[in-house]
Amino acid sequence: MSIEEKIRFIDDNAFKLQEQLGDFLRIKSVSTDKRFSKSCERAADWLVTQLQALKFHVKAHKTEGHPIVLAHAGEGSPHLLFYGHYDVQPADPLEAWDTNPFEPKIKMTANGNAIFARGASDDKGQLMTFVNACNAFLKIDGKLPCKITLIIEGEEETGSPSIEQFMTANRSVLNADYALVCDTSMWDNKTPAITTTLRGMLGEEINLKTALKDLHSGIYGGGVLNPIKELSKAIASLHDASGRVMINDFYKGVPETPKIIKNQWKKLNFSTENFLTEVGLTSSVGEQSYSLLEQIWARPTCELNGIWGGYTAPGFKTVIPSEANAKVSFRLVGNQDPEKIRLEFRKHIKNQVHKDCKINFIAKDGSKAISVPIDSTIIKKAKNALLKEWGVAPVFVGSGGSIPIVGAFKEMLGLDTLLVGFGLEDDKIHSPNEKYDLRSYQKGAKSWIRILSEITD
Amino acid sequence: MSIEEKIRFIDDNAFKLQEQLGDFLRIKSVSTDKRFSKSCERAADWLVTQLQALKFHVKAHKTEGHPIVLAHAGEGSPHLLFYGHYDVQPADPLEAWDTNPFEPKIKMTANGNAIFARGASDDKGQLMTFVNACNAFLKIDGKLPCKITLIIEGEEETGSPSIEQFMTANRSVLNADYALVCDTSMWDNKTPAITTTLRGMLGEEINLKTALKDLHSGIYGGGVLNPIKELSKAIASLHDASGRVMINDFYKGVPETPKIIKNQWKKLNFSTENFLTEVGLTSSVGEQSYSLLEQIWARPTCELNGIWGGYTAPGFKTVIPSEANAKVSFRLVGNQDPEKIRLEFRKHIKNQVHKDCKINFIAKDGSKAISVPIDSTIIKKAKNALLKEWGVAPVFVGSGGSIPIVGAFKEMLGLDTLLVGFGLEDDKIHSPNEKYDLRSYQKGAKSWIRILSEITD
Repeated sequence: MSIEEKIRFIDDNAFKLQEQLGDFLRIKSVSTDKRFSKSCERAADWLVTQLQALKFHVKAHKTEGHPIVLAHAGEGSPHLLFYGHYDVQPADPLEAWDTNPFEPKIKMTANGNAIFARGASDDKGQLMTFVNACNAFLKIDGKLPCKITLIIEGEEETGSPSIEQFMTANRSVLNADYALVCDTSMWDNKTPAITTTLRGMLGEEINLKTALKDLHSGIYGGGVLNPIKELSKAIASLHDASGRVMINDFYKGVPETPKIIKNQWKKLNFSTENFLTEVGLTSSVGEQSYSLLEQIWARPTCELNGIWGGYTAPGFKTVIPSEANAKVSFRLVGNQDPEKIRLEFRKHIKNQVHKDCKINFIAKDGSKAISVPIDSTIIKKAKNALLKEWGVAPVFVGSGGSIPIVGAFKEMLGLDTLLVGFGLEDDKIHSPNEKYDLRSYQKGAKSWIRILSEITD
Repeated sequence: MSIEEKIRFIDDNAFKLQEQLGDFLRIKSVSTDKRFSKSCERAADWLVTQLQALKFHVKAHKTEGHPIVLAHAGEGSPHLLFYGHYDVQPADPLEAWDTNPFEPKIKMTANGNAIFARGASDDKGQLMTFVNACNAFLKIDGKLPCKITLIIEGEEETGSPSIEQFMTANRSVLNADYALVCDTSMWDNKTPAITTTLRGMLGEEINLKTALKDLHSGIYGGGVLNPIKELSKAIASLHDASGRVMINDFYKGVPETPKIIKNQWKKLNFSTENFLTEVGLTSSVGEQSYSLLEQIWARPTCELNGIWGGYTAPGFKTVIPSEANAKVSFRLVGNQDPEKIRLEFRKHIKNQVHKDCKINFIAKDGSKAISVPIDSTIIKKAKNALLKEWGVAPVFVGSGGSIPIVGAFKEMLGLDTLLVGFGLEDDKIHSPNEKYDLRSYQKGAKSWIRILSEITD
């Protein structure tokens, strides 16, 4: 059957496919918070039910964390491995949402209708664009155009701690030719994008303890260690005034962006001013010798994600607390080694604080940065397909975000990954009022139909 | 009737008076947290009931905050004004308590039995020592030895925002000769103390905002302002490496401790090492050119009481938060002006952070430091009375804590205050497992019987 019939299937079933996404979004699959473990299981089971209905061979596999959904269907070459994740970021602060984050609402925006809910864009809506493309093939052609394996995990937002072990145990069924991931963005709402570089990731939690107990600031104040002051000193020391990270050997393995890529990025007409103004800021504060686009795509970072200690409820309490905590995360590029940076970070923090401080570090899995060769056949075919669907050639972009699985696909399975996604800059992923444009949802599925057709042509 | 009969009354009724304190401690009168407003009212009503039973003329007066209990009884000179507070500090962190903070338990300690509960020492147990002394006079003599007015407020732990207005409105009935306060400590468990200097107090909350919303650290990380980093920088700048506070004009009005007082303090055999070791620390971190005793009794401070911002729940969230907050408090000495320091503090913080930061400061009432002349008749009489009860002469001490009312008594009513209390260093006020020794509770009441007798002799 023709491509056009499959494209029409997406339009004809638009309402049904939106309702299906709505059901998915109602499941509170927040992976980082143990209170939502049951919901993560429910999200995996929901996917199993959907994929079974499409005649996939599918199972939710138990892990030490949340289940991994593995599904197979189709025959013939190439064997494509599609990756997505059903887990979502926490929805807090809840009071900043206009609607319930787990009760999806469709609302009109400047760019057409969009569906608002936690996970709408990251990654439930995106991964369903691929499932919907498979749906179209199966309903119109009665079969997929090639062998397709889906691997959908529930721990992407917590650094994917279980998936490597799972991949090792299931290596034989994951012997694909290419990997596909739908967890990235368009360049703008008219221009599709293929992402070719991704930053790596490293997380650390600092627990700094001083006295054995909270102390009265009248009796002890002025004489004893204050853990908030010590932690603040340590945090303030992580960057110099020019935005450079001060951890020893931090920039080891960081490449300068090649001129050819820099020139391509210059042509993108990226407006630093608009990028900042949209979020209420006026000036970039990263490394002052790099453009903002380089700062967020090509340079490593050290960011503070959370801090807490002492009395934080309404009113005042004249206490000198006995501990203070912070969550820190790094984005890595080039050949930066996550574990070496972790050790140097810990040394740095310890050197900044008083010897009476007892520090406990909690590690979050690290992942190296990756980059994808832009001259492969699959990327050329995807480029054609996206041009046909959007009427505009896709641009090659970097991404400041991290998708650790892409590195694992390369290292463990020898696979290159095609990163195509339909998120938009204003999707507010990880923030209140996350949304996914229905246009992205529909044209995303159509894009995958075209990409699969090109690849198997 | 003889003093000894009144002293015996305290022993004979020891169990009953403990039960009465237990009832008082069960009331969760946490003044700083609105969720406990009703409990504050109940504590005031409880006092009214107790004092009515002792034939005081008593009423709980409404204020904009929590009620103030005002009671009168007795006739004749001098007119004594006793001050106490029924409100308590928050009990958190609850998990650090061995027993429920609002279900008082009597337990054996190295120093005899003690009653464990929030407020046991600060200030419910202490204020009841005076009420119990009045009780003994009324039961044994049928009357008080002079005119006594009690003013017991419910906002001491939040800086007493309502009491000055109340004092202005009720000035005529507060025209006493001396004020008495029972909210301070003994020197050690054998040696009573009269407190002659108190530090003043100032509180500020910082709310620092950067972007309009929380941002994804992958998309924005490395390029935009991080409020936790900005707040940490500002906090780290408050002190230099020698412990000196760096706010402009902060030390204006700070006197050097007179040699005669320094010499007296040297004789106290204060062990810096023990003081720190008891709370798990090894070295003092205050101004390095002053002894620890001077740091906590005679020098001004700037302490961090709380900090929060971003993701603080379990797990990781790769967010760049849009705001961060801190609670800061100062202890003031000599002639430091709280309002001038507030303005300079705000200027200092603003100067430390990026221009894109929006800062909102929340003020907590300030109070000046005070010092009491040690050569007055009433202090001499109190000294004799305490010597008789404890067999050891009381020492004159400074206190790092703040009791703002003492300044108000001087400024508004022209009253000097006698500060005598029976708390101990290990009472853990403002901390988990607060307690009050039953020995302090009984001998405290006896001490007040002797002080009242001396004064009216």
